[in-house]
Amino acid sequence: MSAHFADRLMDAIRNKKTAAVVGIDPVIENLPADCRPADSSALAQAGALERFGAAILEAVAPFVPAVKINSAFFECAYEHGVAAYFRLIDRAHAMGLLVIGDIKRGDIGSTARLYARGHIADPPTPSDAGGRIADAVTLAGYLGRSAVQPFVDAGRASGRGVFVLVRPSDPGADEVHEFGGSVRFYEHMAGLVRDWGAAEVSTRSGFSSVGAVVAAKDVESTRQLRAAMPNTIFLVPGYGAQGATAEACRHCFREDGQGAIVNASRSVIQAFENPRFRQRCGDDWRSCIREAARDFAQDIARICSV
Amino acid sequence: MSAHFADRLMDAIRNKKTAAVVGIDPVIENLPADCRPADSSALAQAGALERFGAAILEAVAPFVPAVKINSAFFECAYEHGVAAYFRLIDRAHAMGLLVIGDIKRGDIGSTARLYARGHIADPPTPSDAGGRIADAVTLAGYLGRSAVQPFVDAGRASGRGVFVLVRPSDPGADEVHEFGGSVRFYEHMAGLVRDWGAAEVSTRSGFSSVGAVVAAKDVESTRQLRAAMPNTIFLVPGYGAQGATAEACRHCFREDGQGAIVNASRSVIQAFENPRFRQRCGDDWRSCIREAARDFAQDIARICSV
Repeated sequence: MSAHFADRLMDAIRNKKTAAVVGIDPVIENLPADCRPADSSALAQAGALERFGAAILEAVAPFVPAVKINSAFFECAYEHGVAAYFRLIDRAHAMGLLVIGDIKRGDIGSTARLYARGHIADPPTPSDAGGRIADAVTLAGYLGRSAVQPFVDAGRASGRGVFVLVRPSDPGADEVHEFGGSVRFYEHMAGLVRDWGAAEVSTRSGFSSVGAVVAAKDVESTRQLRAAMPNTIFLVPGYGAQGATAEACRHCFREDGQGAIVNASRSVIQAFENPRFRQRCGDDWRSCIREAARDFAQDIARICSV
Repeated sequence: MSAHFADRLMDAIRNKKTAAVVGIDPVIENLPADCRPADSSALAQAGALERFGAAILEAVAPFVPAVKINSAFFECAYEHGVAAYFRLIDRAHAMGLLVIGDIKRGDIGSTARLYARGHIADPPTPSDAGGRIADAVTLAGYLGRSAVQPFVDAGRASGRGVFVLVRPSDPGADEVHEFGGSVRFYEHMAGLVRDWGAAEVSTRSGFSSVGAVVAAKDVESTRQLRAAMPNTIFLVPGYGAQGATAEACRHCFREDGQGAIVNASRSVIQAFENPRFRQRCGDDWRSCIREAARDFAQDIARICSV
């Protein structure tokens, strides 16, 4: 029996003194020149993505409690990319990082049971690299509680958790999430996610292992979501390249400065394209990423309590 | 430039004289004794799932135009299962079957672009087994048009399509899909999916490459969805083990008997557990599956026009 997921996450935040999470979303066309694949085969692409991902882990591990690895950016290289995704999770664990598998899976209960087996349950044998399983995964909860419960059940004993989509960062999602009358669809989802996690609140940290993905949009609606889900950890996307500032993310934290983690992807992992970091670090892309991770971690440290 | 997805699907239905689709959702614990894995490792499990999947393809190929392969049931065996999933798609294509990859992916546009690369775009090199890419995939459209468009764009030239979740079969999904006032959430999604596919209607068949997953619930609401989406092909889950009869599925077809495909999974692939087929075929599980596929194909032929 491992410690509760929320407790493990809160401990990791205290340890690194920041609630910043780096997102690993590498795209072949944007890799540093010396990481590029030798040819365009999926196998070579997967190797390149893994090398870059490993370098990111090295660069950011000193500064952040967790990384979020986005499955899509590895699935594009088929089973080779999926293998790289799992090896990176294993490697991140070896560096003491928590890992959020950004998989956004969502299907009816009988199918969700199998997704949970592949992404949150303990591996069937020790030969299946135990470290490959993420500490939490993102989920789409649009098929109801039965789509989420198999993950919660499979993760409980091993101290793993989930983050269910409540409010995406992309304005393109508004045509779905702003649906409704006096209660909007995203508010309805917020209530459901709160309910689904109510029985999973840790008495130690006071947080549930069922978290929510909540983008920082306008202050008023963010405050309302925060108040509606007091025991829910928010995973906040959209910082940096997607436009959200630390100030905008502040309202995703409770008044006590706890209860959220903030993710930055492109602004950190593509920092070597940013003149600000190139000025500091020149062509050394690893140093650019390291410096960007350090700045990001410090920026988020200002808005959270550790 | 390949033919339009909807035209290819309609041709396949005419060819097999039925709109029945067999779902391949194998679970390790339920495999026939001689398909079971030698040990519990993910690698051995993937091999067992692939053997059983290949036997299903053999058994059902004479009777149905397409199979639906559910990613979750292979992802549970990690990269080994994912490799098996792709090899089964390749094998199904070699047998002249169309394949729907049941992946239910859904994420914001910048991420959806990568999922599309992994699941619907042509492979990067000929060495990456061109047949491994499904003819259509299921999607969750809850992040809006931008979550779906990359798949539509990537699939257009190669004649591939999508089926976006509109009304799931599981009653557990109602807590989300029945949300709303005079317009329910699933009706809102139906309107969006119709709009997203409006520019993708084939002049030949009159159907869009953007289909919808629509379970046959009560007759009245099914009729309303059918009327609201006249050019949308419905992928209808829930037949057989999940309880829907051909009669209930009838209303997912247009008055002209076109515009839907009906999926059965467990009732076909686990037919060897059904006394009805055991009586006919004894312990020969392959024959049980074949007979169940034949019966299912005939049952659906009664309610569709070919």
